[in-house]
Amino acid sequence: MDKMAFSAQIKVCFGDIDNAGIVYYPRFMHYFHVALEEFFSSEIGVEYARVIHKYGMGFPTVHLEADFRRRLRFGDRINLEVWVRDIGRTSITWAYTGYKTGEKDAVVVEGHNVTVCVDMTSFDKKDIPEWLRKELEAYQKRCA
Amino acid sequence: MDKMAFSAQIKVCFGDIDNAGIVYYPRFMHYFHVALEEFFSSEIGVEYARVIHKYGMGFPTVHLEADFRRRLRFGDRINLEVWVRDIGRTSITWAYTGYKTGEKDAVVVEGHNVTVCVDMTSFDKKDIPEWLRKELEAYQKRCA
Amino acid sequence: MDKMAFSAQIKVCFGDIDNAGIVYYPRFMHYFHVALEEFFSSEIGVEYARVIHKYGMGFPTVHLEADFRRRLRFGDRINLEVWVRDIGRTSITWAYTGYKTGEKDAVVVEGHNVTVCVDMTSFDKKDIPEWLRKELEAYQKRCA
Amino acid sequence: MDKMAFSAQIKVCFGDIDNAGIVYYPRFMHYFHVALEEFFSSEIGVEYARVIHKYGMGFPTVHLEADFRRRLRFGDRINLEVWVRDIGRTSITWAYTGYKTGEKDAVVVEGHNVTVCVDMTSFDKKDIPEWLRKELEAYQKRCA
Repeated sequence: MDKMAFSAQIKVCFGDIDNAGIVYYPRFMHYFHVALEEFFSSEIGVEYARVIHKYGMGFPTVHLEADFRRRLRFGDRINLEVWVRDIGRTSITWAYTGYKTGEKDAVVVEGHNVTVCVDMTSFDKKDIPEWLRKELEAYQKRCA
Repeated sequence: MDKMAFSAQIKVCFGDIDNAGIVYYPRFMHYFHVALEEFFSSEIGVEYARVIHKYGMGFPTVHLEADFRRRLRFGDRINLEVWVRDIGRTSITWAYTGYKTGEKDAVVVEGHNVTVCVDMTSFDKKDIPEWLRKELEAYQKRCA
Repeated sequence: MDKMAFSAQIKVCFGDIDNAGIVYYPRFMHYFHVALEEFFSSEIGVEYARVIHKYGMGFPTVHLEADFRRRLRFGDRINLEVWVRDIGRTSITWAYTGYKTGEKDAVVVEGHNVTVCVDMTSFDKKDIPEWLRKELEAYQKRCA
Repeated sequence: MDKMAFSAQIKVCFGDIDNAGIVYYPRFMHYFHVALEEFFSSEIGVEYARVIHKYGMGFPTVHLEADFRRRLRFGDRINLEVWVRDIGRTSITWAYTGYKTGEKDAVVVEGHNVTVCVDMTSFDKKDIPEWLRKELEAYQKRCA
């Protein structure tokens, strides 16, 4: 069986479109976030909402890069893969590859962002907790 | 001098447009909220952010009605008037009239919503504080 | 078997939350629209994107009412039912009832909006085409 | 007098906030776009809407990088500078620096994106028209 990354299925909705008739590019960052939220439920085994509300952690983005390779229109569907590229002491680098559903060669967007683990009250950096590190490493192995 | 309501100037931006080439209708509710935020700064003399952060109050919407009379396109500008229609013990009814800037007869949207004053921690209803009631009533007189 | 309305499953995402820690109320109108888009695929048998792009029709909203009965937080899920309340010559009145998934008594939002069928190029009103009227009426019967 | 870049004044609004109580990071890309729209009116002397609607050009983003240095909260204000970093045959590289209004050292966000000039109907690349190139170069000189 092929190893592969988790991918969120995202459907471009009516309100995602801009005045040029294609997806407003900031919406891609929203798609990245939605995919990350689903990644937590599916691969880490805990809802992202619960990570924040129960564990009091947050993961603000400090760096972002993205390449937009194809236009998306209303009704288009993409699969947005979520990869764990790097796990530091307090930071995680995530990568995303989106392609048209059913057309793996039709890459729409590629990007990565660096998030820092913080305490949700003070916004001070904190070490990634051991349980999360283990889950992220296990996911990396499943994708390798 | 004519008495008149406060109006926020709003410019339709690129990302407000939907797949039909006009403003995505949920954005009008966003415009209502932005106008309300500016109303607080301009007419109540305190920033809405400060009302929430310092006084620990919030004003969630419990009822909304709106009529959409003209399409808006990218680059259009509207003036969005904010009226205080009714002040109850815990609720405020706001009304909004948006017209194309410079064309008072070209009404684009009319609506009103009912907000309830709550404690921001418990979300329990609370009485509108006396200082706010006085400011709202003074505004009503200025508009009458 | 109970007859029932189509319902879209909607999960509150991280970016839907406002400064009060609950769903920003304009997002509910976005949820209404997303549910309507899914309704077309599921119950009318044609994607909403295709209705617009192939048939050249649009359905701008001219009137909206909504009551917000419960707060929603990040991670909450709702089922948002779509009802066809009335079919005029050029207008359709849709109704929406959202409740917490798995808790039919926990109504979160109720609303309705009136949309007008227009030609997507001229934005002139046009009669609802016969094929769509039949599908909408058939849906009404399935829900009755 | 110091030469300086155009800057758009942006106020964080209630709905820009996410579940962590800070600006949802995709909103920064929206801020970039809003600043670009205002840049056209102020520095190029033509509304961005008019560029699209009259000249039939668009400028989709093909690459984006951003660093987020400070959190923003509801009510915060930033000045978002727009720089023209590079003008190619069909592409323009824009840079953005946002700092808290009145605190030039308090950099909030830095980023740049590459946009490609396209025909709005076919989405084929096209050369940047001479009139626009001249305006962009003149702006670069004013900032130098």
